[in-house]
Amino acid sequence: MKLAMIRTGGAARPVRVDEAGRRFWPVEALAPGLPTDMVGLIAALSAGATLPEPTGEGQPLDEAALLAPLPNPPRNIFCVGKNYYAHAREFAGSGYDSSSTGAADAVPKAPIIFTKPLTSISGPWDDIPLVPGLDAEVDYEAELAVVIGRGGRCITKAEAMGHVFGYTVVNDVTARDLQGKHKQWLLGKGIDGFCPMGPWIVTADEVDVATMRLTCAVNGEARQDAVTSDLIFDIPTLIETISLSMALLPGDVIATGTPEGVGIGFKPPRFLRDGDVVECAIEGIGRIRNTLRRADPAALRGAA
Amino acid sequence: MKLAMIRTGGAARPVRVDEAGRRFWPVEALAPGLPTDMVGLIAALSAGATLPEPTGEGQPLDEAALLAPLPNPPRNIFCVGKNYYAHAREFAGSGYDSSSTGAADAVPKAPIIFTKPLTSISGPWDDIPLVPGLDAEVDYEAELAVVIGRGGRCITKAEAMGHVFGYTVVNDVTARDLQGKHKQWLLGKGIDGFCPMGPWIVTADEVDVATMRLTCAVNGEARQDAVTSDLIFDIPTLIETISLSMALLPGDVIATGTPEGVGIGFKPPRFLRDGDVVECAIEGIGRIRNTLRRADPAALRGAA
Repeated sequence: MKLAMIRTGGAARPVRVDEAGRRFWPVEALAPGLPTDMVGLIAALSAGATLPEPTGEGQPLDEAALLAPLPNPPRNIFCVGKNYYAHAREFAGSGYDSSSTGAADAVPKAPIIFTKPLTSISGPWDDIPLVPGLDAEVDYEAELAVVIGRGGRCITKAEAMGHVFGYTVVNDVTARDLQGKHKQWLLGKGIDGFCPMGPWIVTADEVDVATMRLTCAVNGEARQDAVTSDLIFDIPTLIETISLSMALLPGDVIATGTPEGVGIGFKPPRFLRDGDVVECAIEGIGRIRNTLRRADPAALRGAA
Repeated sequence: MKLAMIRTGGAARPVRVDEAGRRFWPVEALAPGLPTDMVGLIAALSAGATLPEPTGEGQPLDEAALLAPLPNPPRNIFCVGKNYYAHAREFAGSGYDSSSTGAADAVPKAPIIFTKPLTSISGPWDDIPLVPGLDAEVDYEAELAVVIGRGGRCITKAEAMGHVFGYTVVNDVTARDLQGKHKQWLLGKGIDGFCPMGPWIVTADEVDVATMRLTCAVNGEARQDAVTSDLIFDIPTLIETISLSMALLPGDVIATGTPEGVGIGFKPPRFLRDGDVVECAIEGIGRIRNTLRRADPAALRGAA
C-alpha cells in the first residue's frame, strides 16, 4: 500500500495511491472513522485498524499535488551518520567530519545518531532554499527513511521489523561548512527546507528492504548508486539502539544514512548551486526531485 | 510573572504563581479566552494578549503538583555544548568529548548545538530513571533554559532579546558513555526522563539574565556554582546562530549549557547512583530536585 499526502481543495489530506501512482482514493472516503492526519493514521493502522481496498476508479493523481507524506512527525526525525562503508571513508577524508580524526576511525563502531528538526521537512518537489550564509557548501544525501508504526522501548533486533510501518525517500540536504564548524550536526542539517521527503510511504509488506537500489542524480548526472544491503548498521540494529534510549513513537522517522557519491566526495568538492536539480530515487518506493533556488532573507524574516 | 503547569483534578493546566511560589491562579480563570496549553499561551502572550493581574487570594500551591512548565514544545529542545570556559576544558579533558581532540581546541569557536527530544522532558521533582545499559555513567548538568516567545528567522543579536519569553531551569542529564560512543550526542542526552525542567517559567521582564547565579548540588554537596555572565556564547548569539538555520517558534527551548563541576570533571569521575538527589537552582527562577531511581526495563517496555 502507498499512502501519500495531497493538497485538494485547499486542504492537505492522506490518500491511498495505486501501484503506478496514477490514481488516488482519500482515506476519509475509504474508511470514514480513521484519523485524517498521517501520524494518527499510522498509529491506528499499526494498532489493528484496516484501510479497505479501494473500489471504483478513484481520482486521477496530479503528481504536482503531492506533499511530504509525513509533514508532522511527533518530534525531530532521527538520522544516521556514516552508515555506508564507502561514504564513511569519503566523509572522514573530506575535512568536515567532527566524528573521526582520520582513516583509522573513519568507520563508526556504533551508530551515529543526530536529528533534523521536523520543521526542516519539505515536499517531494519543493525547492531547496539557498540562503546567504548557508549557501556556500550545500550537499545532497539520498537516504532510505524508515517510518515507525507500533511504538516501543527497549525493542530487540529480533522484534524490530514488527515496529516498521513503511518506508519513504528523503534527501538529507546538508550545509557542509556549518556541519563542520558547529561540531554537532544540527545547524548544518536542520535548515528549513533541507529535508525533502516523499513521494509517499510504501508499507513494509510491499518491499524487500534489504535489497533496494538507491540512486541520486544531479542535473541528470548519476552521483550515488547503492543497495541498502550495504548499510553498516541495519534497520533492526538502528531500532534496537535508539529504542534503548527512548520509546519510539508511531510516525517517528529514521533516515538510515547516505551512500558514497556526495559532493564532498569529489576533489575538489562539487557543491549544489542555484538552479541545480537533485533527484533521489529508491526502487520500490519512488523518486523525489528538488531544485536549488536562491531565497530572499528579507522574505524569510517576514514569513517566520 | 511566573507561569507553571500543575495537575489539579486530574488535568494539567497552566497557572500563574505568586512571587513566593505559595499561591496560584489558573490561567483559564484569569483570562477565559486564552489558550490552555503552554505553547499556545506563550504564543498568544507574545502576540500581544495580556494576562490580568491576579485578584483575590488564589489557591494554595502544593509544590508537589508542579509539572514541567513546558511539557510539549513544538520540537526537540535545543541544547548548547561546552558553553562555559571552565566546563569546556574539563569536558575536553575527560575523554568523552567527540567535538575536540585536546586542550588546543577545547573551547569551541562556534556554538555547538544539539537536541534533546521533547519526549525526554520530565517534571521538576520526577525521578531520573536508571535503566540497565544506560546507567553506568550518568551525569548532571544544571542549565539556564531560554523559552522563545515571538518566533522568527534570521534574527540579529540586536533583536534577539525581544524574542525571549522567559527562562526556566533544566538538568541536561547525560549518559556519558553513550555521549562518547555515538559521537553525536542525541542518544546519550535524549534518554526518556533525562530532562527535568521547572519549577516554572519566569518572564524575561522579571530577571537580569546576565547576572544570575546557577548552582547544582548532589546529595547536598555543592558541585556547580557559576554566573550566567560566564557564557562563552551569550543568549543573543545563540538566537542569531540558530535562527539563521531555521525559524524559531513560540515555545522553543534553548538550554544554554552547563558550567564547570560535572561528574566527569572529577578524577576519578563521580557518576550518579541509585538514590542520589540532584538539585539544580538559578537565583531569580527557582530550583528543581530529582532523585536517581533504578527502573525496570520490563515495565518500560510495557509502558511504551
